[in-house]
Amino acid sequence: MKEIRYFYVPNAASVGELPEEEAKHAVRVLRLQSGDRMVLVDGEGGLFDAEVSVASGKHCLYNILETLPYEREWRGRISLAIAPTKMMDRIEWMAEKATEVGFDEISFLDCKFSERKTLRTDRVERIVVSAMKQSHKACKPMVNEMCGFREFVAREREGRKFIAHCYEEVARRDLFDELSAMDAETPVTVLVGPEGDFSIDEVRLAMEHGYESISLGRSRLRTETAGLSAVMMANLSKRRG
Amino acid sequence: MKEIRYFYVPNAASVGELPEEEAKHAVRVLRLQSGDRMVLVDGEGGLFDAEVSVASGKHCLYNILETLPYEREWRGRISLAIAPTKMMDRIEWMAEKATEVGFDEISFLDCKFSERKTLRTDRVERIVVSAMKQSHKACKPMVNEMCGFREFVAREREGRKFIAHCYEEVARRDLFDELSAMDAETPVTVLVGPEGDFSIDEVRLAMEHGYESISLGRSRLRTETAGLSAVMMANLSKRRG
Repeated sequence: MKEIRYFYVPNAASVGELPEEEAKHAVRVLRLQSGDRMVLVDGEGGLFDAEVSVASGKHCLYNILETLPYEREWRGRISLAIAPTKMMDRIEWMAEKATEVGFDEISFLDCKFSERKTLRTDRVERIVVSAMKQSHKACKPMVNEMCGFREFVAREREGRKFIAHCYEEVARRDLFDELSAMDAETPVTVLVGPEGDFSIDEVRLAMEHGYESISLGRSRLRTETAGLSAVMMANLSKRRG
Repeated sequence: MKEIRYFYVPNAASVGELPEEEAKHAVRVLRLQSGDRMVLVDGEGGLFDAEVSVASGKHCLYNILETLPYEREWRGRISLAIAPTKMMDRIEWMAEKATEVGFDEISFLDCKFSERKTLRTDRVERIVVSAMKQSHKACKPMVNEMCGFREFVAREREGRKFIAHCYEEVARRDLFDELSAMDAETPVTVLVGPEGDFSIDEVRLAMEHGYESISLGRSRLRTETAGLSAVMMANLSKRRG
């Protein structure tokens, strides 16, 4: 039995054709033909059972047979803002895993001690799309362009906001305790710093903007592990039964 | 300020010299000299403040200045037994992250649907040692050789034992709920299957041997993500305040 294939089609309900990259993959690699079944996700929670109507070269047209029920596996909204690691593969790996586990948004921060000041978000976007399909989710996490730390923390954000750091002189609560005690529907944003941590001025600035000072536990984690831990904690505290 | 360096020295309290690989790194790469300070971990919970006494070529002798207090960040014992992924880098990545987060033992299972039947545990061992030092832990997770599934589940194991799988026809409880409700001091073992899951016969065999049927939640996770999720759930439910 062939496993049914997932394709990402923004506005799948109305467009009627796979985007070019997806079409090439469907037609040239998987050799789908007229009448073959597939599942479409639109990245906004839409999940569809569909059938190939025309497949040739760069084009793959489809008919939607049924709108399938879909509910995100978690409540509220989980946003991570993280300083990208020096090695791109580490942050890309994290984006893949966070998507599988389940979260809503990733932002990249340019911090005082950042070892990486630029980032190819198109690569992250592709990884996130692939992980969404592979884990059979219909909601695509939003991938935001890199942004200066000061600018990010000054923005309005809905819900509770946390900054994870290692400064013992700044009182920190435990993130998982805070998440577990709060209403699961409340959106959360967690900031994770670079290899050399946020500067203490950055921590204080975030706190002035309403970010709560937190710890991710007693283990010393690499940046990408800290980011994934924060997402897992948020997902565990917000998941549906 | 130079960050203090961690070295892994089995039986550090008695041997008085770094193992050859660690010595080469200390002397040739880091250029440590007589009088330089370092931290030694023995992998069994021993943590020491030490000073280089002689450094030359392949040798690095030390004097222990002080035994430092160390307490594992979690209670009980966390064991993961997992079918290695086809791509080695995925399982190696998982071993690194699980060590950072904190666990006690990793075993590799040869299952009916395993895509990988052999494994270089010496590579995993090196990764685990590196992650232990990097995350400033003094306990090294045990890395066991690959073992047949039937043999593994037939062995006596202390504490609660769980098998994660995706068969909807076998009733499953939620792992995190079970972990959260149990005594944190009780050891746990979690089995995670290969890309194609355990066979249903393997699930039933494990249950005959006292393994409890569980789910890791509603998200569809890759093998290595499932393994890390299980470790993170166990660590969260067992961590010290």
